[in-house]
Amino acid sequence: MTGLCQILGMGPGDPELLTLKAVRYLQAADVVAWFAACGKPGHARVIAGDHVPSGAEELRFDYPFTTAVPVEDPRYLVDMAAFYDRCAQRLSGELAKGRRIALLCEGDPFLYGSAMYLFDRLSPHFRCEIVPGITGMSGCWSAAHLPMVHGDDILSVLPATLDEASLSAWLARGDAHVIMKIGRNFAKVRAALQQSGRHEKAVYVERGTQAGQVCLPLDQAPEKAPYFSMVLVPGRKRAR
Amino acid sequence: MTGLCQILGMGPGDPELLTLKAVRYLQAADVVAWFAACGKPGHARVIAGDHVPSGAEELRFDYPFTTAVPVEDPRYLVDMAAFYDRCAQRLSGELAKGRRIALLCEGDPFLYGSAMYLFDRLSPHFRCEIVPGITGMSGCWSAAHLPMVHGDDILSVLPATLDEASLSAWLARGDAHVIMKIGRNFAKVRAALQQSGRHEKAVYVERGTQAGQVCLPLDQAPEKAPYFSMVLVPGRKRAR
Repeated sequence: MTGLCQILGMGPGDPELLTLKAVRYLQAADVVAWFAACGKPGHARVIAGDHVPSGAEELRFDYPFTTAVPVEDPRYLVDMAAFYDRCAQRLSGELAKGRRIALLCEGDPFLYGSAMYLFDRLSPHFRCEIVPGITGMSGCWSAAHLPMVHGDDILSVLPATLDEASLSAWLARGDAHVIMKIGRNFAKVRAALQQSGRHEKAVYVERGTQAGQVCLPLDQAPEKAPYFSMVLVPGRKRAR
Repeated sequence: MTGLCQILGMGPGDPELLTLKAVRYLQAADVVAWFAACGKPGHARVIAGDHVPSGAEELRFDYPFTTAVPVEDPRYLVDMAAFYDRCAQRLSGELAKGRRIALLCEGDPFLYGSAMYLFDRLSPHFRCEIVPGITGMSGCWSAAHLPMVHGDDILSVLPATLDEASLSAWLARGDAHVIMKIGRNFAKVRAALQQSGRHEKAVYVERGTQAGQVCLPLDQAPEKAPYFSMVLVPGRKRAR
């Protein structure tokens, strides 16, 4: 008998945006695992709340870095790979015992989720199932009441870590745009939006679907933005 | 007293991919409305299933066209606008009576959803709330076990209705790609994937998360594809 690893998308923050399937799998889990930044409660675990059964073993995986270490740092890839190896090894031990694991993942697991790196390591050896989650961007544009992608619009999802010229070039083409991971890239993002003429329609969203949610036109946004904020530029080729 | 229009994302097809919030709102609705193609049951209504309360009034809005009428046809925009006007007028009557409407929408309402056009018409006059849904693309890449968007990858969501040269140019840049609305554009999509060198990693998904789901490498995909199929090209800038 071998175990089952269920990778569960936990959605953008509002616990009611969990799916029925994620709740059912959570409630049946022997082991509940999640990633968290050091010193923080772990967003995915907070969303799971009381759905985690009292008898389940809880495994918290602390990232070796915070977002303060740039991904360009050569240590980053090496240390992250070693970290994911350790996490996968820990889960493999449980799976080999035939246990059922719920690996919690903010948003949707296969859209910028860390769980992908454990899936890569575990899926050749153990049964895995992916439960998609509401993406952060869907949560944000719904919260902002901002219809985003119409008819034959092209949507580009851009990390704010791109350099200013690339960001500006991407914004100039296509129709609808989501810029993720704003944080300390905000000044550059504003400049790129200005250069590409997309600043007027841009909307800033912070903590979408969560307590303390902020949705503002870009020109009214605060000067500093947290890492988990985004800028949305709606498309609309056709008025109808 | 005025009503409330709740626009509910119904997800990609699997009824268990409904959110807790969508289910709660559905169960409290006075009126349940949805779009459907003529002669078809309406996918969103099928997903809602027994969550629709027996006392609720059900409103079905039949699209004036099928996908057989190209969007380039000048009649399309005019007739669709008149259709959305009629739907909005019908719902306005209910909202003015103070009723609570659940407007069902496949996938996520603000990502290519028809409900956007009713939101545009209703939201200046009535309270509206948007409940995001699991997108079709999240459903498909999860079903295909295909980790899609990593680290600082750029994701582009492209309608297959683009001309071949544009499609090929979009595929050549960026990292991860989703091509929607394949249908009769499949031969063109294949050619664009070949030209851009992205065909080898491409995966074809039909009826993702639903009965009869098909996930295949592109070179094993059937020659003809239904409208609601997609092609996924995973990104991966960094191996880790």
